[in-house]
Amino acid sequence: MFPALTMGDPAGIGPELTVEAWHRQRESGEGFIWIGDPALLDGYIPTRAVANPQEAEAIFVEALPVLPLALARPVTPGQPDFVNGAAVIESIALATKLALAGAVSAVVTNPISKQVLKQAGFGFPGHTEFLADLCGVTGQEVMLLASPRLRVVPVTVHVSIRRALEMLTAERIVQVGQILARALRSDFGIEKPRLAVAGLNPHAGEGGLMGDEEQDTIFPAIEMLRAEGIDAFGPLPPDTMFTEKARESYDAALCMYHDQALIPLKTLDMASGVNATLGLPIVRTSPDHGTAFDIAGQGKADVSSLLAALRMAQEMGAHRRAFGEKQAK
Amino acid sequence: MFPALTMGDPAGIGPELTVEAWHRQRESGEGFIWIGDPALLDGYIPTRAVANPQEAEAIFVEALPVLPLALARPVTPGQPDFVNGAAVIESIALATKLALAGAVSAVVTNPISKQVLKQAGFGFPGHTEFLADLCGVTGQEVMLLASPRLRVVPVTVHVSIRRALEMLTAERIVQVGQILARALRSDFGIEKPRLAVAGLNPHAGEGGLMGDEEQDTIFPAIEMLRAEGIDAFGPLPPDTMFTEKARESYDAALCMYHDQALIPLKTLDMASGVNATLGLPIVRTSPDHGTAFDIAGQGKADVSSLLAALRMAQEMGAHRRAFGEKQAK
Repeated sequence: MFPALTMGDPAGIGPELTVEAWHRQRESGEGFIWIGDPALLDGYIPTRAVANPQEAEAIFVEALPVLPLALARPVTPGQPDFVNGAAVIESIALATKLALAGAVSAVVTNPISKQVLKQAGFGFPGHTEFLADLCGVTGQEVMLLASPRLRVVPVTVHVSIRRALEMLTAERIVQVGQILARALRSDFGIEKPRLAVAGLNPHAGEGGLMGDEEQDTIFPAIEMLRAEGIDAFGPLPPDTMFTEKARESYDAALCMYHDQALIPLKTLDMASGVNATLGLPIVRTSPDHGTAFDIAGQGKADVSSLLAALRMAQEMGAHRRAFGEKQAK
Repeated sequence: MFPALTMGDPAGIGPELTVEAWHRQRESGEGFIWIGDPALLDGYIPTRAVANPQEAEAIFVEALPVLPLALARPVTPGQPDFVNGAAVIESIALATKLALAGAVSAVVTNPISKQVLKQAGFGFPGHTEFLADLCGVTGQEVMLLASPRLRVVPVTVHVSIRRALEMLTAERIVQVGQILARALRSDFGIEKPRLAVAGLNPHAGEGGLMGDEEQDTIFPAIEMLRAEGIDAFGPLPPDTMFTEKARESYDAALCMYHDQALIPLKTLDMASGVNATLGLPIVRTSPDHGTAFDIAGQGKADVSSLLAALRMAQEMGAHRRAFGEKQAK
């Protein structure tokens, strides 16, 4: 079974990355099915419309299998057009429906523009919330970022530092920690996952000298996770927990705010980071970059992150199926 | 002219690092003079007491030149004793006095324990504030952390994230930016330093969607620095500004809080980070680690950071002398 790759914004770098990914994956043999307008790719690579994802595997070596979706207007790279928003949204909805039905192994999303989709009437802040809604699990979605050297999950995400301080509660840390531990077991094949929990303040507060969130919020959350049998430990001083040696001691870092998670990840592995949404009934990954309208259509975009997202989706899907079979016994 | 290396806490890893540094620097020919109790090093390396730092250069290849300071009680590694605090403090004071008098090129400090010195009646939170007081420039001290790949300066340092938000003003960012730009010119030989200024919030606030400090505080500070002819730019999204490619565009990153600066530095270069205090009339560096009482006397301590601190002190001192001569013309 293949993962489904969505179209993303057709005026961004999604189409050229898709072309490049087909070239690369033909060699590796790890295919995917694309949901979008074949006119975008015509002249670059051969495409073949399929009616059913099952047909894709036999086709992939010769042509990109496509579930066709027509765009409303022709596309100029770098010039997004909200009139095409409906097809962008439909591509995501169809991929999710197929994944829920077990017809594709996972959903991999090409980048979208929130601004453009907002004009098209899209009512969600981004992919993640839309997918959670489509799957009927709003509020359960958790963002994981993974690279070859590090996995991080921010407990608070796209909010100001000031707001993150308000949102940080023991309950929230426990909820995210539970979803993370479950996903590491089911989707990453790690039987007894080790979660390194970051402090919030410098030196993890140094015993209350520099902040009390460690004592009042984070430590109690760790205790609650441990009481459930989850191997969580910390709170760790944030500045030393991402060194090569420190990283050997855990499978994922639970971070208190966006940049505490994203700075080490992007500093170590800018090009090959993958975004995965945990807490959904389906597997979903995406490359860790945006539409890049400024370079779209110029052949400058780096396909590394999309390739890593496709690979991780395939691996997570396989782990989840094996885990499900084991549980069923 | 040599830099002076202080004793640091005699029960920490300072003495064994000093022994190792002498072995290493004998080969490289870059000497230093140590201010401490020679009894600590007896049996490990030859030492020679000097009355005047000028005698040190002729001696270094054969023995460690020492300005002797007697400890009150014999030392057991790993077991700090506040009774020896007076000599630890005197070592720092004497090194600073010699540097102010131009008898040594710089001060390099071995790690001290704030807890132990507090018991000995020491009234400062750490080295940095004590040195600023000895030099009569309290409030001007700025912490720079440098490694082979990155220089960072946190605008707020050893305070909670909550307190850092309160302390962050345009005036403070401008003051620290001025001291940093001046130091990069005088102590690092960079004629037109480029300062990358970090945002505070995820995506540098994304136009006010995730916090307003970028618009209200950081951007005005950058404008003020630019009005003075300082090449400051930003506010930059914190998570992407420390990648290899991004680092090429600046000489130092001005960061809004401790971990924003320290996470990328330690993730990239844990062992070879150096701490330098800018804004003083003397050059001062230190290794970027503590007393490590838990491993003291076991030969496990890594000398890399102290060697880097000695080297950077020597280079900063040479740059500052050359800069002073150029200014005097």
